[in-house]
Amino acid sequence: MKHFLDIDDIEDVGALVLEATKLKAHPYAHQTLGRHRTLGLFFFNASLRTRLSTQKAAKNLGMEVMVMNFSKDGWSLEFEEGAVMNGTSAEHIKEAAAVLSQYCDIIGVRAFGELQDREKDESEYILKNFGQHASVPVISLEGATAHPLQALADALTIAEHKRTDRPKVVLSWAPHPRALPHAVPNSFVKMMKRQEVELLITHPEGYELNKSITEGVSVIYDQNEALENADFVYVKNWSSYNDYGQILSKDPNWMTTQQKLSLTNHAYFMHCLPVRRNVVVEDAVLDSRASLTTQQAENRIYAAQAALKTLLQHGS
Amino acid sequence: MKHFLDIDDIEDVGALVLEATKLKAHPYAHQTLGRHRTLGLFFFNASLRTRLSTQKAAKNLGMEVMVMNFSKDGWSLEFEEGAVMNGTSAEHIKEAAAVLSQYCDIIGVRAFGELQDREKDESEYILKNFGQHASVPVISLEGATAHPLQALADALTIAEHKRTDRPKVVLSWAPHPRALPHAVPNSFVKMMKRQEVELLITHPEGYELNKSITEGVSVIYDQNEALENADFVYVKNWSSYNDYGQILSKDPNWMTTQQKLSLTNHAYFMHCLPVRRNVVVEDAVLDSRASLTTQQAENRIYAAQAALKTLLQHGS
Amino acid sequence: MKHFLDIDDIEDVGALVLEATKLKAHPYAHQTLGRHRTLGLFFFNASLRTRLSTQKAAKNLGMEVMVMNFSKDGWSLEFEEGAVMNGTSAEHIKEAAAVLSQYCDIIGVRAFGELQDREKDESEYILKNFGQHASVPVISLEGATAHPLQALADALTIAEHKRTDRPKVVLSWAPHPRALPHAVPNSFVKMMKRQEVELLITHPEGYELNKSITEGVSVIYDQNEALENADFVYVKNWSSYNDYGQILSKDPNWMTTQQKLSLTNHAYFMHCLPVRRNVVVEDAVLDSRASLTTQQAENRIYAAQAALKTLLQHGS
Repeated sequence: MKHFLDIDDIEDVGALVLEATKLKAHPYAHQTLGRHRTLGLFFFNASLRTRLSTQKAAKNLGMEVMVMNFSKDGWSLEFEEGAVMNGTSAEHIKEAAAVLSQYCDIIGVRAFGELQDREKDESEYILKNFGQHASVPVISLEGATAHPLQALADALTIAEHKRTDRPKVVLSWAPHPRALPHAVPNSFVKMMKRQEVELLITHPEGYELNKSITEGVSVIYDQNEALENADFVYVKNWSSYNDYGQILSKDPNWMTTQQKLSLTNHAYFMHCLPVRRNVVVEDAVLDSRASLTTQQAENRIYAAQAALKTLLQHGS
Repeated sequence: MKHFLDIDDIEDVGALVLEATKLKAHPYAHQTLGRHRTLGLFFFNASLRTRLSTQKAAKNLGMEVMVMNFSKDGWSLEFEEGAVMNGTSAEHIKEAAAVLSQYCDIIGVRAFGELQDREKDESEYILKNFGQHASVPVISLEGATAHPLQALADALTIAEHKRTDRPKVVLSWAPHPRALPHAVPNSFVKMMKRQEVELLITHPEGYELNKSITEGVSVIYDQNEALENADFVYVKNWSSYNDYGQILSKDPNWMTTQQKLSLTNHAYFMHCLPVRRNVVVEDAVLDSRASLTTQQAENRIYAAQAALKTLLQHGS
Repeated sequence: MKHFLDIDDIEDVGALVLEATKLKAHPYAHQTLGRHRTLGLFFFNASLRTRLSTQKAAKNLGMEVMVMNFSKDGWSLEFEEGAVMNGTSAEHIKEAAAVLSQYCDIIGVRAFGELQDREKDESEYILKNFGQHASVPVISLEGATAHPLQALADALTIAEHKRTDRPKVVLSWAPHPRALPHAVPNSFVKMMKRQEVELLITHPEGYELNKSITEGVSVIYDQNEALENADFVYVKNWSSYNDYGQILSKDPNWMTTQQKLSLTNHAYFMHCLPVRRNVVVEDAVLDSRASLTTQQAENRIYAAQAALKTLLQHGS
């Protein structure tokens, strides 16, 4: 792959998950691959797991890492083609991406959407401009519409814990005090569609995700019905996609509880973190052995390592 | 030791000081010990010496280091058990500590007290929660009530410069424009009580430290009397402990001067830094050969290295 | 050299440019030189190129690097000799520089001027105080009056692209919405005066740079005339030096265009970046093969590496 900005960039999902599995078993098996190669991590937004797991992944491959909070420590960027830059932006993405390509062998960028303008968010103008103007591979550390490293870690976690050849995986919306983006559910759905699983989505009416992504996936508005016989319940809040960025419901009945999980086939609970306890999911679930959140976070290392290894070996 | 959060966590103070001495003589003698081991440094507050000296200590041991200003670059944390997280906190310490334990082999945390609520500060809820929920050793980079890495560096500095088997060490309060915490004097007192020294504390009335810490140590309100025959004068401001966090005095007569030091046995001057010149201590003292502040700062490397080495070898 | 704070600190400019050329050809030829040596990079201002290129340069030499946004992550500094520190500054430069010298083998500092008080800016009190009180070499990451690493990269870029033994180099002022400092043009002029080039400066009346720096260099107020037969056009905005820090002109006719470059001898376009597109220079120039901005940015690595190598080998 040239860049890793979306699940669609993965040619062979099975091979990449297998790569991650192998790297987890032998994290330092390729520690000369990254020798004299530098990963730059550039954050336009807060980050904990992604920041640390991707650093660790790069170090496991022997890479050098440079981390920077882009907007705080550097210059504000202009993205518009042909802009007359007499305002607040001090540097154009064309220069920034070209320059970073001199210092980095792979460029990681985190750039959330703003949930104000759907078209703007869906353009992924920050990540795509980096991809367009960089001469080295660009890896998404979460964009407005996709979080492929998370979805890859999730696929690895499901592969490790599945008890049947074709487990039932339910993606369930959950309440949240704030409007959250669609990056995680989008990438999870795209990833699961390429896995041997029975995928089902449940959410209140009005919370339909981008139909071009969920095409072919069953959606049920009754959470209890959806949970029946589930092997994995992946819980996540997102704001409305159709009424873009709006909060349509904070219905506490959608919180994941032990009682809800009792409807399932002893399902594992999954969440990408950070998670709001007793809003998204009750303590009893998170603190139980059914919760895989820590394993998902651990697998972020090997997901990133598999992606970086692929880019180092086959990147442009 | 499991964690290193307080002087009390040190089993054998003499052995740890000796370890620091050895590491100072041969900083790279154990540079394979930390191979493939990662130290995460997480700051809730500003830091210069601790940030740099602990990084350097870890590098000397061959560790990888990841540094993060936690509250600025990551998510705001919830610490309350059972909290319904519908407010500003995005992540619970339970998840954060569990996740960091996947990425780090040792977790360093700096979390000052707020000097508003003594009980809250004394609970050391940030550091203790990290210790409770992490599955790897946690090292204090200064908490609300303790700064053990500083005290260990101070003990090393005194060991290097003492001219008698049992030197007289005076901890003297100093004036300061702001209310400062008790972490440094607390840990210094605890450490000195476990050293072969004659310890004496001097401060204005009302500035008594936590009695459970100073138990058995003489306190004199007359600074001049206290300084007589001192071999080391350790100077530090702190706010009132009984009238918690209040400034009861800014009396400039408590500033350390050359004249005051003339009352001593050619005493060395010590301070943990940063220090307010001509408020806490006059220029003439800091700029004289009697001042050990630079040596103390240098010894922060080897104090941290001794602690990290111990945690790597014997940590949980 | 003891420190590298200005072009004047370079003894043999030709030798240093040659060193950079060699390092560019063989970046890892000296990767044991920096073993167990630490570079500290301390930023009082935003930085992208300098932050990343200097890190990479140090890593190429095998050094460890510690990066810190000084004022945000550490303590505010006092620089005045004899100050009574009862205000906002928590630490004196004397202590800070002495302490950093314990943790770093080379100290890099970025400290812009404020363009309010010429005398204060010209004193370079931050960099010079670091130089005075540090016991290790200090390298400028751009000060108020000089940016020697940029000028060294620029000299390397010109050396690589010159088509005659004595190319004509024109430094041209450009319009800009903000008042910018003189560090880059100052160092460029000083550097070019020590190169085999025909240097000429062009700017609107009132934009004369410090005469002690431009002494002996022709200044022409007619940009078109200046550009005739130019081999390199180095474009940069700066605020007025005589009417210190003021913006006297935003005349768009001074923007560099393809049409302007047609007056030259197929001149290369140079700029230190970040650059305001279509204000300082039009897109057509930046996006053409005449632009050397990316090469200049790449050469920042080898300029820094040559400077660091020299300081490691011959520093105090």
